[in-house]
Amino acid sequence: MSTSAGPDGSSRVTARYWIETARPLEEAAAIMAGEQSTGTFVRVAGETDELRARCGARVESLAALGEAAAPSLPGAWAPKSGTARPQTAEVTLSWPLHNFGPSLPNLLAAIAGNLWELRPFSGMRLLDLTLPPAFLERYRGPQFGVAGTRRLTGVHGRPLIGTIIKPSVGLSPAATAERVAEIAAAGIDFVKDDELQADGPHCPFEERLSAVMRVLDSHAERTGKRVMYAVNITGEIDEMLRRHEQAVAAGNTCVMVSLNSVGLPALAALRAHCRVAIHGHRNGWGLLGRSPAIGMSFIAWQKLWRLAGIDHVHVNGLDNKFCESNESVIASARECLTPMFPAPHPGCEVLPVFSSGQSALQAPETYRALGSVDLLHACGGGIMGHPGGIAAGVRSLHQGWEAAVSGVPLAQYARTHRELAQALAAFGR
Amino acid sequence: MSTSAGPDGSSRVTARYWIETARPLEEAAAIMAGEQSTGTFVRVAGETDELRARCGARVESLAALGEAAAPSLPGAWAPKSGTARPQTAEVTLSWPLHNFGPSLPNLLAAIAGNLWELRPFSGMRLLDLTLPPAFLERYRGPQFGVAGTRRLTGVHGRPLIGTIIKPSVGLSPAATAERVAEIAAAGIDFVKDDELQADGPHCPFEERLSAVMRVLDSHAERTGKRVMYAVNITGEIDEMLRRHEQAVAAGNTCVMVSLNSVGLPALAALRAHCRVAIHGHRNGWGLLGRSPAIGMSFIAWQKLWRLAGIDHVHVNGLDNKFCESNESVIASARECLTPMFPAPHPGCEVLPVFSSGQSALQAPETYRALGSVDLLHACGGGIMGHPGGIAAGVRSLHQGWEAAVSGVPLAQYARTHRELAQALAAFGR
Repeated sequence: MSTSAGPDGSSRVTARYWIETARPLEEAAAIMAGEQSTGTFVRVAGETDELRARCGARVESLAALGEAAAPSLPGAWAPKSGTARPQTAEVTLSWPLHNFGPSLPNLLAAIAGNLWELRPFSGMRLLDLTLPPAFLERYRGPQFGVAGTRRLTGVHGRPLIGTIIKPSVGLSPAATAERVAEIAAAGIDFVKDDELQADGPHCPFEERLSAVMRVLDSHAERTGKRVMYAVNITGEIDEMLRRHEQAVAAGNTCVMVSLNSVGLPALAALRAHCRVAIHGHRNGWGLLGRSPAIGMSFIAWQKLWRLAGIDHVHVNGLDNKFCESNESVIASARECLTPMFPAPHPGCEVLPVFSSGQSALQAPETYRALGSVDLLHACGGGIMGHPGGIAAGVRSLHQGWEAAVSGVPLAQYARTHRELAQALAAFGR
Repeated sequence: MSTSAGPDGSSRVTARYWIETARPLEEAAAIMAGEQSTGTFVRVAGETDELRARCGARVESLAALGEAAAPSLPGAWAPKSGTARPQTAEVTLSWPLHNFGPSLPNLLAAIAGNLWELRPFSGMRLLDLTLPPAFLERYRGPQFGVAGTRRLTGVHGRPLIGTIIKPSVGLSPAATAERVAEIAAAGIDFVKDDELQADGPHCPFEERLSAVMRVLDSHAERTGKRVMYAVNITGEIDEMLRRHEQAVAAGNTCVMVSLNSVGLPALAALRAHCRVAIHGHRNGWGLLGRSPAIGMSFIAWQKLWRLAGIDHVHVNGLDNKFCESNESVIASARECLTPMFPAPHPGCEVLPVFSSGQSALQAPETYRALGSVDLLHACGGGIMGHPGGIAAGVRSLHQGWEAAVSGVPLAQYARTHRELAQALAAFGR
C-alpha cells in the first residue's frame, strides 16, 4: 500500500479551524502555524530558513467570515481601536508528516495543543482534518464497521434496532439479565450497558457478563438469533484487555468503551488484540463540542477514533432530548459513512448510532436525511414505553423503517400496522 | 490504610460545578444528579425508591450566583418569559463510590459524561472534585513529586531552573545534543523537549536520547551534577513503555508525556512500570479550560493526573505570553502543592512548572504569591536571550530567586549582581 507522498516528496497533514481574532487575519494564521511547528514567541538561534522550509507548518488557505459582535473568550488581545471588533475566519494549516510521524498522540500536540491558549485568539475551533494514508501503517481502523456488524448480527437491509439497559445503575447482575431476557424475547438486534454501568461492586463486570450471556445463549439456541451485547469494558488498559478476553470467551460479539475516558492509545491497544466489534461511546463529547467558540467538531474528533479502531460511534438522534440540532446529528452520521482515505486504502467507515428520545417517529426523516439504512437505531422509551409492550415497540421500529424506505407516510403505513399506529399515538407530538 | 467510609458506611465522590440555566435552580440540579446516576429522561420501571436511595447522586449544596446577561451556550431551553435571563449557580453533587468503584475512566463518565449535552443548561463547568482515599488502592499517585525530584537533581532550598530545547522541531539528534551541551554547561538543573518533538524521522527518539545522554553523562562526570532531561516519550502505550525503559537504561531521571494526548489509563499504565519522574505536559489544556462557560477547571483536571501518577505539571507562568491571568496561574500552582487526601494518606503533591515568557523578573511575585520555592522555573528567552549568554541567564535566575526569598527588591539586589542587572535591563518593562 503506497502512502501517497505529496508533490514535494513528503506527506502532509491538514487541519481546518474557525478562528476569531483582533489581529490581522494573515498575521493570526501565521502565528498559529509558527507556534505549532518551528516557531516560538521570539525567533531563536537555529530557526534557519532551511529548517523552517523543512518543518514549518504552512497556511494553506484563509477565508474571512466577518466580524464577531464581541470577543467570545476572555484573555485575548483586544482590537487596537476601542470600537473595532474581532474578525472571524476559516484557516487551513498543513504540517509535514515528518514533524511527528504517523502518531495520533503526537499529531494532537501539533493540531490541538497549545493553540487554544494563544493570546491573539478570542475563539478557536478545530473543524476538520485530513491525514495521509501513512497513518494506516500504524493504526488498524475499524475491524468490523458496518458490514462486519451486519455479519455478526445477521441484520441486513434495514437499520439495527437496539436499546439500553435501564435503570443505568443499581441493577444486580441477575436483574440485568432479566431485563436482557425480556428485551431479547422482544426481537431486539442489539442491547447495551449504560455508560454509567461498568464494574461497580453491586454489578461486577464478570457476573453481569456471565448472567447476560447465559440469557443470550439460550435465546440464540431457541431462535437462531444472536443479540449483540455492547458490554461496557471501560477501565484501565489491563482491565479492558482482560474484560475483552472474557467477553470473547463468553461468546459475545461486542465491547463498549467510553472513548473520552480512556484516550486514543488505550483504544489502539485494545484494537490490536480485539476480536469483536468496538462500540464507541462518546460521553463527554459535549465538553469538547458544544460551544461554537472553542473546542472541536465531531467531524474532526471521530476521524481520530475511527483510525484507532472503533466500529460504532454515537451521533445523538433527530429530535433528541439533548441540545444538538438535527442538522448537526445528520452531518455527524454522514461523516461516519464517508471514507476518510481515498481508494484503494480502507475508508474506515463506522456504524453511526442514533439515540436519545428515539422511536419509530424519527425513521422517515432519518432515512431521508441520511440516505442510508446503515445505522443502529437505539431507542429507550420508544421501545420500553410502547403501549403494546417491548415486542410491540421493536415491531413498531421495523414498521417505521419499512415505511421510511418504501416512501410511504407513517400515518398511511400505520393503518395496516397496529404497533406503528400505537407508537404514533403514544409518541406523536 | 483505611478508605474513610462516610457515616452511611459508603464512601462518596463529590464534584462542584458552575451552571447556567433557565430552569429553577433546584430542578436543574436534580436533573444533573438524576441523569448521571439512576435516572433517565423518563422514570423507568425498576427505578425504585430503594435503588435511588442506594445509587442516586445527591445535590449536596446549591448557591445562586445571579443572572447571566444571555445564554452562554446555544441549544439550551430558553427562559419561559422572553425577558427573563438564565440564572447562574454553584452546585455540588455527590455519588456513592459503589456506582463506579475507584476507577478514573468510569468516574469520568459520571462526573464529566453527558452533562454538557443536557438541554436545561446554557453553561457548565466542573470546578473541583473530591475523591475518597479508596482511589489510592488502585492508583499510585506521584512516585517522586517535589521531594523525589529534588533528590534526583540535587537541588534544595530554591526552585529548579529549567529550559526548553528550541527550535521545537527540526533539529537533528546531534544538533539537539549540541544545544543541551551548551545549556548544561550553563549550570541548568532541568531541560526538556518541546511537546512537538517526539519521534519524527528526522529526530528519532532513540538517537536523540543517546546523543543527549552522552552529553549529560559527560557533564555529570566533569561536574558531579546530573541534569534532569524530560525526554518526550509521548506515543502509543507500547512505545511509551519501551521509551521509558530506554530512558532508564540510558541513566536518565525523567520522561515527559503530553497528558491530554494519551489519556489517564495510558498514564496509569506507564506509572505502574515507571522508575523515573513523570513530567506532565498539559498542551491541549486551553481547549478544556479557557472558556468560563464550558469545560473544567485546572483544579479538577490536575487531581485526576496526580492520582494517575504524574510528578510535575505545567501551570503557565506569571505575566505569561498566553491568555491566562496571574491569579489563575497561582491558584493552579498552589493546588499542585496542596494534599488531595487527608493524612495519613499520601497527599499526592506534585511540582508545579512555571513557563512562558519567564525570566528573573517574575521571581519576587511568584514567591510572594506562592509562598514556596517548590517549583520548576522554566525559562526560554529569559535564559537563552540573556545579553551575557546562557550561563549568565541561569545565574540571573538564581540571583532573582535569592532576592525574592530574602525580601530584597530586584533593583537593589541587582546593584551587586551583574547578571540580574543585565536581565532587568534586557527584560524589564
